[in-house]
Amino acid sequence: MKKKITVLPGDGIGPEVIQGALQVLDAIANKYNHEFEYTYAKIGGIAIDECDTPLPQETIDACKASDGVLLGAVGGPKWDTLPGHMRPEKGLLGIRKELDLFANLRPVTAHDSLADSSTLKREVIDGVDLMIVRELTSGLYFGEPRERREEGDDLVVVDTLAYKRSEIERIMKQGFELARVRNKKLTSVDKANVLESSRVWREVAIEVGKEYPDVELDHMLVDNAAMQLIRNPKQFDVMVTENMFGDILSDEASMLTGSLGMLPSASIGSGGPGLYEPIHGSAPDIAGQNKANPLATIASVAMMLKYSFGMAEEANAIDQAISEVLEAGFRTGDIANPGEEVLSTTEMTAKVIELI
Amino acid sequence: MKKKITVLPGDGIGPEVIQGALQVLDAIANKYNHEFEYTYAKIGGIAIDECDTPLPQETIDACKASDGVLLGAVGGPKWDTLPGHMRPEKGLLGIRKELDLFANLRPVTAHDSLADSSTLKREVIDGVDLMIVRELTSGLYFGEPRERREEGDDLVVVDTLAYKRSEIERIMKQGFELARVRNKKLTSVDKANVLESSRVWREVAIEVGKEYPDVELDHMLVDNAAMQLIRNPKQFDVMVTENMFGDILSDEASMLTGSLGMLPSASIGSGGPGLYEPIHGSAPDIAGQNKANPLATIASVAMMLKYSFGMAEEANAIDQAISEVLEAGFRTGDIANPGEEVLSTTEMTAKVIELI
Ligand SMILES: CC(C)[C@H](C(=O)O)[C@@H](O)C(=O)O
Ligand SMILES: CC(C)[C@H](C(=O)O)[C@@H](O)C(=O)O
Repeated sequence: MKKKITVLPGDGIGPEVIQGALQVLDAIANKYNHEFEYTYAKIGGIAIDECDTPLPQETIDACKASDGVLLGAVGGPKWDTLPGHMRPEKGLLGIRKELDLFANLRPVTAHDSLADSSTLKREVIDGVDLMIVRELTSGLYFGEPRERREEGDDLVVVDTLAYKRSEIERIMKQGFELARVRNKKLTSVDKANVLESSRVWREVAIEVGKEYPDVELDHMLVDNAAMQLIRNPKQFDVMVTENMFGDILSDEASMLTGSLGMLPSASIGSGGPGLYEPIHGSAPDIAGQNKANPLATIASVAMMLKYSFGMAEEANAIDQAISEVLEAGFRTGDIANPGEEVLSTTEMTAKVIELI
Repeated sequence: MKKKITVLPGDGIGPEVIQGALQVLDAIANKYNHEFEYTYAKIGGIAIDECDTPLPQETIDACKASDGVLLGAVGGPKWDTLPGHMRPEKGLLGIRKELDLFANLRPVTAHDSLADSSTLKREVIDGVDLMIVRELTSGLYFGEPRERREEGDDLVVVDTLAYKRSEIERIMKQGFELARVRNKKLTSVDKANVLESSRVWREVAIEVGKEYPDVELDHMLVDNAAMQLIRNPKQFDVMVTENMFGDILSDEASMLTGSLGMLPSASIGSGGPGLYEPIHGSAPDIAGQNKANPLATIASVAMMLKYSFGMAEEANAIDQAISEVLEAGFRTGDIANPGEEVLSTTEMTAKVIELI
């Protein structure tokens, strides 16, 4: 098969981990006789520096013209003091919106061989296999108004948490579809005892749930969910939640695996290309040092193969290679225990490729 | 000294844990020659059942006329399907607002003797001593509009995250004052890369911080904070954050201590009586069974003595007794390891009193 991929390396460690992931893609192309064509485009801080906007129109066009988008990371202290519309993050939020990527899938799988690098006890994380489905194009991230207003001597600042019923419906369906092919359990996370939007969220969950009688549905308040993820993460299969809650819970959940450096994500929409990115950030402190863990980006490539290209076998080959590399004891700095040998980004990438 | 305390047992395990806490207060009164006068009032589900409102006016009046308020918990499945304004939680939110309790202090102290009942590794939680300062009377919990609107065929539901600059200033000052008498480090938690309100939050933190040059200030994004609490909780001293983020992070942080059943809270305002409550909920599943852990409520009483009555020595006596009881190996069900003897609510209370 031939596929067109738009590559957005972004900032910080973005370019390094992307390079690793593309080498893995090339290995897959070779082995399975595919052709992947890469178009590079700019997003985030580098786009601000070179094009004066975090999301140039040609980046949007390139993404729309492709079969899948691979993104590294955006942001860094260099751009932290710019006004809101000129922040690197605006590029990321913008492309999510432009491509209508309303469903962000964040699988959390605890690798047995990494249990020691988690701060949680082995028996707690052993066998964890959950998927956070985060709504990605609405809620507090996009609601209007978002503004500052003078009020007498005081300033009032406002953000808006808005959801359309139809937006909740489509993410909920996505969650149920995933639960159906996984372990048939869906936990809808909300704050229905306080928020009106959460009450609608819960109503829609119940309604959509009727179409999936084979999936067990339960509801959990977000504060409780933040606790239960640490208390007993094995109780979860698919968790569906709104944008901001999902942002918080998925970073928290990354600790179950020992490192943010392990976790991939897929953002998919209603038919257009999906976007794949590691959930770790741009890690400016280690950027350019060939130290970053490329596994989250490599695992994101596997998700692209699976969800956008329908290449389940190829995706499996990558996931399998990652597991074997970890079992063989290879570690980057973020997942190494004291005294263990530490591989560079390129060395870790090479190990994965060897096993494909 | 003579003090008037309004007691709001509330729902579920509320009455049981309150009873334990009052017995401890009586023991303190005896030993230190104080007089505590209790006025009982209704809040939450029981108030809905008996007075048709989750927060009767006489409850508000009683609270305002007292020196401190002690609350058990509110809520339960019985009232979960009532409309928003008739929910038990509305009583809790209402009393916070009526008493202008803008600062919610949630100390998280890992008891060495409980390390085994945490799902985190001992070395991670050993010596944790942090305080989450949560803004409690604004943000998403109270912002207007909060409503449903028809929009063509669709429904739009809105909640509003609004902050006044002055509201951020006063909670920030509270945080810095606490940091000053603790370990002189303040972490301001926000989502400044996305929310306008968080940008103002960060600006105010920096500005107020100038008045506290002896306190080290840093800023952390809420998603990262959710992760760092699990990755390395010892890095924190005082964390200051807005209402919803504080709700999520403090429940998460409770897992550092092994059980939600251990954590007290104080909600204080600008001069009136403070409100003290355990952060665990009403736990309807174990209500009325004399199984609940009373220690969080007993520790909340200690906070009342310290913050509202200026009785530092008495507060210390309680905290000390709690530590000793735990060190002696006494456990309620929530903190017991398999095979350990489990005390009832009343037995655990008696153990604490013995040591005062
Ligand atoms: C960079 C930031 C805007 C982004 C978000 O909050 O969505 C990130 O934290 C993520 O989770 O992808
Ligand atoms: C019961 C609920 C409204 C409340 C809150 O969200 O504030 C509770 O979770 C808390 O943290 O005190």
